[in-house]
Amino acid sequence: MTSNIAIKSDALRDLYAEWTTLMTDNPTMGMRLFRSIFDEWHQPTVEPEDVTYREEVVGGVPGIWCLPAGADESQVMLFTHGGGFAVGSASSHRKVAAHVAKTLGVTSFVLDYRRAPEHPHPAQIEDGVAVFDALVERGIDPNNITTIGDSAGGNLAIAIPLALKEQGKPTPGQVIVFSPWLDMENEGETLKTNNDTDALITPELLAGMIAGVLGDKIDPRTPLANPLYADFTGFPRLYVNAGSVESLVDNATRLQERTEAAGVDITVNIAEGQQHVFPFLAGRSDVVTEELARIRDWYGSAR
Amino acid sequence: MTSNIAIKSDALRDLYAEWTTLMTDNPTMGMRLFRSIFDEWHQPTVEPEDVTYREEVVGGVPGIWCLPAGADESQVMLFTHGGGFAVGSASSHRKVAAHVAKTLGVTSFVLDYRRAPEHPHPAQIEDGVAVFDALVERGIDPNNITTIGDSAGGNLAIAIPLALKEQGKPTPGQVIVFSPWLDMENEGETLKTNNDTDALITPELLAGMIAGVLGDKIDPRTPLANPLYADFTGFPRLYVNAGSVESLVDNATRLQERTEAAGVDITVNIAEGQQHVFPFLAGRSDVVTEELARIRDWYGSAR
Repeated sequence: MTSNIAIKSDALRDLYAEWTTLMTDNPTMGMRLFRSIFDEWHQPTVEPEDVTYREEVVGGVPGIWCLPAGADESQVMLFTHGGGFAVGSASSHRKVAAHVAKTLGVTSFVLDYRRAPEHPHPAQIEDGVAVFDALVERGIDPNNITTIGDSAGGNLAIAIPLALKEQGKPTPGQVIVFSPWLDMENEGETLKTNNDTDALITPELLAGMIAGVLGDKIDPRTPLANPLYADFTGFPRLYVNAGSVESLVDNATRLQERTEAAGVDITVNIAEGQQHVFPFLAGRSDVVTEELARIRDWYGSAR
Repeated sequence: MTSNIAIKSDALRDLYAEWTTLMTDNPTMGMRLFRSIFDEWHQPTVEPEDVTYREEVVGGVPGIWCLPAGADESQVMLFTHGGGFAVGSASSHRKVAAHVAKTLGVTSFVLDYRRAPEHPHPAQIEDGVAVFDALVERGIDPNNITTIGDSAGGNLAIAIPLALKEQGKPTPGQVIVFSPWLDMENEGETLKTNNDTDALITPELLAGMIAGVLGDKIDPRTPLANPLYADFTGFPRLYVNAGSVESLVDNATRLQERTEAAGVDITVNIAEGQQHVFPFLAGRSDVVTEELARIRDWYGSAR
């Protein structure tokens, strides 16, 4: 069984390796083709069964609702997709968002927020706040809203509650982040130590994404852009995972240090041998099945 | 309203224009990137509501079931996607296949058949026949199976029943094709006369696809590769549509001539001003809403 699982679980690493080859072989590939290849991010994820979808514009932001059969519609995941603030989409993340929602018995709205570089920071956070406000306006209890996201979308899932707190508004009941990318200074130690094992992330790739979202005028230590510099006092309970062999794993561990120092209720799982945003293997990997069950238990434990 | 519809309906032409620019700007773009951009084919299609999905391997061929709520599971569309036999996928066609299935109240299995050039003709037809055989083996009445496809997948939706007939097997009850691409000689008149209005198709693009699927050993007049040369005696009833401004529209009209001469019950709709495979605008264009209703009436009229 173990070898079988290991083979199946290669689908995400294989896709990352293909993208890396494409980027290397096509050094002048522009943003439009970057968006094409990153929209394949859904490919390692198996279609979840018994989930329907509905496109809607919520708070002025388009997106896709994931509606598992029998889900509690009063509980909503506000899902911000990854992709360096520049690529990825509601489509690329529909399946993984649906797997999470289905496991937790809730609904999920995957935002197509405005992307960089056309829309630099903080457009993405503004869109997330607008959706949150619209959900509350509809009568959803803030405690029943979870901001959730992966990679750059994990950054946003943290920055949105921080922005809400700054604005004196209620915050989500909890926050879930997969392989969050927070370090806009691009200086994390595991960028070097995991460079050989991470199949996708390189400092050069990240530098391009940072230039796109922050330009040359926004300080990379701005707390809403780089939550490693944020004040986490009063932040919601937080679940974080990452893969042990990925270049961004120390973003998760540095987030843990900073939030624990502020007294945040944080749970962290570093999954041995897994790549960046390993929940993309949902439906294909027992590691993810177990991880989603762990998140379900964590989610339910405070409700 | 008319102007609004016209604007919304530009989504498919806009996507084709973007792909054309990408192919022009990246003349050395290989098959891998071709597959990336053509997997965006789903983008003009709105997510259909009240449909769930299930991945399965049927007859050895992987694919995605589209399962509309309340659909009659004894009626199955065997959907072969377009993309020159080389690109496109079950994912790129999931939404459009689901819209058709939902409108007709049936289920649809979208095949990930083996693609060219790794797998030349007739691998694609073999896969379609294998799925058909497996469905019959499961107890589905052949009359309740519809082969359906777009572009190169429309070719396959015709070739699969032709192959079944050759093998002395029962054939599907009916066949539906959107903008079928049949002319492997690449000499149709509308390749020239509609060259300026078709946003995607060029003879050069088609020549590359023909080389990929037929190589230099298979005659482009082989009936199972080019059904314009097939014997249509006893062929199932057939529904064909195409856009009036597309380069492949005369494939539909030549198919009509040939099948009518063989006594086939054929219905053709050439939609004014529409691009290649205009049903991709499902959920976004009233033209497609009307077209799907027309197909539903046609489908129901003989049942």
